[in-house]
Amino acid sequence: MKTLNTIEEVRAWRGAQAEVGFVPTMGALHEGHASLIRRSAADNPATLVSVFVNPTQFGPNEDLAKYPRTLDADLKLCEAAGATAVFTPDKSMMYPPGFRSWVIVDELGDRLCGSSRPGHFKGVTTVVAKLFNIAQATRAYFGQKDAQQALILRRMVSDLNLPLELVVCPTVREADGLALSSRNRYLNEDERKRAVGLHKALAEVERLFKAGTTKTAILHPALVTILDDYVDKLDYAEIVDADSLQPLDEVDRPTLVAIAAFVGSTRLIDNTIIGV
Amino acid sequence: MKTLNTIEEVRAWRGAQAEVGFVPTMGALHEGHASLIRRSAADNPATLVSVFVNPTQFGPNEDLAKYPRTLDADLKLCEAAGATAVFTPDKSMMYPPGFRSWVIVDELGDRLCGSSRPGHFKGVTTVVAKLFNIAQATRAYFGQKDAQQALILRRMVSDLNLPLELVVCPTVREADGLALSSRNRYLNEDERKRAVGLHKALAEVERLFKAGTTKTAILHPALVTILDDYVDKLDYAEIVDADSLQPLDEVDRPTLVAIAAFVGSTRLIDNTIIGV
Repeated sequence: MKTLNTIEEVRAWRGAQAEVGFVPTMGALHEGHASLIRRSAADNPATLVSVFVNPTQFGPNEDLAKYPRTLDADLKLCEAAGATAVFTPDKSMMYPPGFRSWVIVDELGDRLCGSSRPGHFKGVTTVVAKLFNIAQATRAYFGQKDAQQALILRRMVSDLNLPLELVVCPTVREADGLALSSRNRYLNEDERKRAVGLHKALAEVERLFKAGTTKTAILHPALVTILDDYVDKLDYAEIVDADSLQPLDEVDRPTLVAIAAFVGSTRLIDNTIIGV
Repeated sequence: MKTLNTIEEVRAWRGAQAEVGFVPTMGALHEGHASLIRRSAADNPATLVSVFVNPTQFGPNEDLAKYPRTLDADLKLCEAAGATAVFTPDKSMMYPPGFRSWVIVDELGDRLCGSSRPGHFKGVTTVVAKLFNIAQATRAYFGQKDAQQALILRRMVSDLNLPLELVVCPTVREADGLALSSRNRYLNEDERKRAVGLHKALAEVERLFKAGTTKTAILHPALVTILDDYVDKLDYAEIVDADSLQPLDEVDRPTLVAIAAFVGSTRLIDNTIIGV
């Protein structure tokens, strides 16, 4: 596996490949990332992983400074999962002096996580567009855990005619159902136990929907009641159209049930799609 | 020469080319466009021209509806100038329902033309990014006549790591010095005569600068005095840093002298760079 430190090195490496699968990450890799890399390695003759903690998607009071950096372990995981090359740019390469161009996706970025993290998705779409242009990938892989991110990136790829296929892969979970996240390592023992509440709440909504309940006026309180037992502070819990992210009264189409909640001081997200 | 009507046709055509030069236009082609096509044909084994009157770069009170459409003549000019293929998308392909992604370049797009045409450059950068992604060009060609556009696109290509080279070519002029423009055909006989005032004003600033005058407090009034004799209404006449577009007191670096003015109801632009 090659480690590529500069944009020029990526371009030179890319020029020698026919098709490339691409997995952009912020490092602190876990089994969820490994599942994306394995999928890419199965689909493509070469797989590039990027490890870059993107400052422009963090708000001023968020965890940029303390976001976990575990590069040695990340490189081992990438190699074991089948990556061909890893790109580890630094901030000055990605955002040189005078940088002032942005990719924005209207509306979709203002709701759910965008509402509590203003500017977050502008940072995500911009860095992902940049990485796509650097990697010139044939396919790119993202996790369903970041459902809103996947939706927004799909819109960006389609609207801006980016010449690649976006593949969204299932959320990987711990044995008790907790969605894997780089931020799970912030949790102490008690918090880790309570973090499963997000999954339990989503599972209850899935159960009710399967049993015939379609009114969000019934599903939403069930979601929140369970969350209240586990989490310290709810950021949002919403039942929305899976394409437009607009609130629904009735689950009569593909519907995203999405949660963000604090357990201790750690903000966790999870989601499920019902009504497909 | 091939005519490509859909994005899929461009992608299929592109796949068969090694390197491609690209000349994006809004049609109503003239000798200025021809010079870009000839340059591309000299630099590249294949040249793609796009003809698309991009609605998102026109303001609500601008000339979108009456912008000249001359496709038959455009195709003849493209072929004569050496184009290999012409892409003629329609609005519904470029902006399908639900479209909501934009490329923006902060600050540079708010001054000069951006100040009198709010949103103009957001439309330009977005459509050009889309066309770049569709054409997957090796090189793209623009005219120096649209100096601010060239500066903003150069910034976009650099900031977003777009994998192509941007080539800016000299302004082509009529015998009397009037810069070629698709909008020149709006001018009646009297207006056409007076339109040369933009060039005359720029030439006077060039003359004064060559003679040793570097203070913009002297150069600017000279610019405006000549314009006042010829044009009906000045939109802007500015002497600015050629990279940042910030006003200068002294021409002590590459400096853009840029004008936009109405002759009759037609808005014309022109510019020159001094102090290189």
